[in-house]
Amino acid sequence: MPLDKLTIVGAGLLGGSLGLAARERGLAKRVTALVRRPESVIECQALGVADEVTQNEAEAITGADLVILCTPVASMAGLAKRWSAHLKKGAIVTDVGSTKRQLVDELTPLIARAGAHFVGSHPMAGSAQTGPSAATAALFDGAVCVVTPTDTTDATALQSVNEFWEALGSTTVAMSADEHDQLVARCSHLPHLLSSALAKRVLDPKHGELQKQLCATGFRDMSRLASGSPVMWRDIVRSNREAILAVIDEFSGELEQLRARVSEDNGENIERWLNEAKLARDEWRASGLD
Amino acid sequence: MPLDKLTIVGAGLLGGSLGLAARERGLAKRVTALVRRPESVIECQALGVADEVTQNEAEAITGADLVILCTPVASMAGLAKRWSAHLKKGAIVTDVGSTKRQLVDELTPLIARAGAHFVGSHPMAGSAQTGPSAATAALFDGAVCVVTPTDTTDATALQSVNEFWEALGSTTVAMSADEHDQLVARCSHLPHLLSSALAKRVLDPKHGELQKQLCATGFRDMSRLASGSPVMWRDIVRSNREAILAVIDEFSGELEQLRARVSEDNGENIERWLNEAKLARDEWRASGLD
Repeated sequence: MPLDKLTIVGAGLLGGSLGLAARERGLAKRVTALVRRPESVIECQALGVADEVTQNEAEAITGADLVILCTPVASMAGLAKRWSAHLKKGAIVTDVGSTKRQLVDELTPLIARAGAHFVGSHPMAGSAQTGPSAATAALFDGAVCVVTPTDTTDATALQSVNEFWEALGSTTVAMSADEHDQLVARCSHLPHLLSSALAKRVLDPKHGELQKQLCATGFRDMSRLASGSPVMWRDIVRSNREAILAVIDEFSGELEQLRARVSEDNGENIERWLNEAKLARDEWRASGLD
Repeated sequence: MPLDKLTIVGAGLLGGSLGLAARERGLAKRVTALVRRPESVIECQALGVADEVTQNEAEAITGADLVILCTPVASMAGLAKRWSAHLKKGAIVTDVGSTKRQLVDELTPLIARAGAHFVGSHPMAGSAQTGPSAATAALFDGAVCVVTPTDTTDATALQSVNEFWEALGSTTVAMSADEHDQLVARCSHLPHLLSSALAKRVLDPKHGELQKQLCATGFRDMSRLASGSPVMWRDIVRSNREAILAVIDEFSGELEQLRARVSEDNGENIERWLNEAKLARDEWRASGLD
């Protein structure tokens, strides 16, 4: 550190924020952003998310010490195939994808064949907004970033990736791609899908206009995630299918338990169930992990 | 308006906020708060939620033009039985309870026997915090308040209750107690129970400490309601049991539909499902009903 050249592939909320943060903290002598559309070149230049913004893959990848994939997960491997031949020998490639097993399986051999190293990452940071205009240099400060090494991961590359995230203010946690995918299915993908299911059920036109008028702050907050990008979440769901099916079943089981308690009309049982949830949540908040 | 005497029974978040708002807007010459514990007398006096704060039921109820029940729903009818004989002839009694059928059935004849009028209300306003220290005069400003008249409701009393809520900045909506209970089961009680179920599932100790570390802003917001009062929510659940069972079943059906789409792994179907949720939610937000 600092790197000679850091390249960000895709400059949306995450890529844009990475560029701003890396520049602000002086983590690279030069930050390059590779984008797809001509309008993005102009927008990203105006926002200052990188020192140079280009649509030219060879120009963006050549000479980069660290390349960070910030496009939607479904496109990462296909794009990397197009420019991996330009990678410098010994370069490090990481990503910000929300699911890891599939990506790690696809990118590890692809990047290795180019003489470079892949290490999967998932910074647990985001926003309800999207696009580079929502980017902020503080996005990763205080966040947890999961890093998913495999048995064959280069130790020095792993250390560099850890150091990079820590230099942005994140705390890194290492685990296998499978463990990551199971844990985020439960704490990130499940909440998103519940939010969408709630929005669909409550706002179904058949319940009428009065139903919409009675929706207050509780519903507003519980349905916020449903406003996220359907395309991005479709890809997340497809890339983590098995784990998501398992947590949907787990949650359905919890709802059945609740239903039985409500049906029995046993006040003590209902209160205990609500209290367990409150205690778990309050303890988590108090632990400062949020 | 202004009333000669407004009495608030129970001075927690809602009762305290009512007192502050009524005083600020000059809706009564005198605002009295009836509280249960000696500590509450001192606290409510210090916070200025009423002109007089008392534990004496006769003193609080005698001479009041409007009495607003702000205790937990399960205690309202029992308390009213104790002081209803002190009601002035023609006085109006309303409440802020989250469920209405049971309350309206119990309180309408009870208050009528005392020569006064009961009209059920439910201001759709709240906060994650509780108690009079969280009270704020602005709580009802811009909120929707449901009023639930019956066939026997006195027209003048109904009009006075509507005017009272509107003078606090709320928009009133009239509907039957049954319709109210079904609609709030879906848009208020269901979100609360989903939040609790999510907190229980995700934070179950068997998933380990890493699971807790990966919980980010999505989970934090989706589990916020789970930190509400288990006793208050136990009572809400018990007083709206049938409607809550129906919406749990409705939601389970939506989850099953989602599960089938994820299982099929049909990208177009998953995206359509997510998009329907997003469109419904974005349209609701844009309508300004939130």
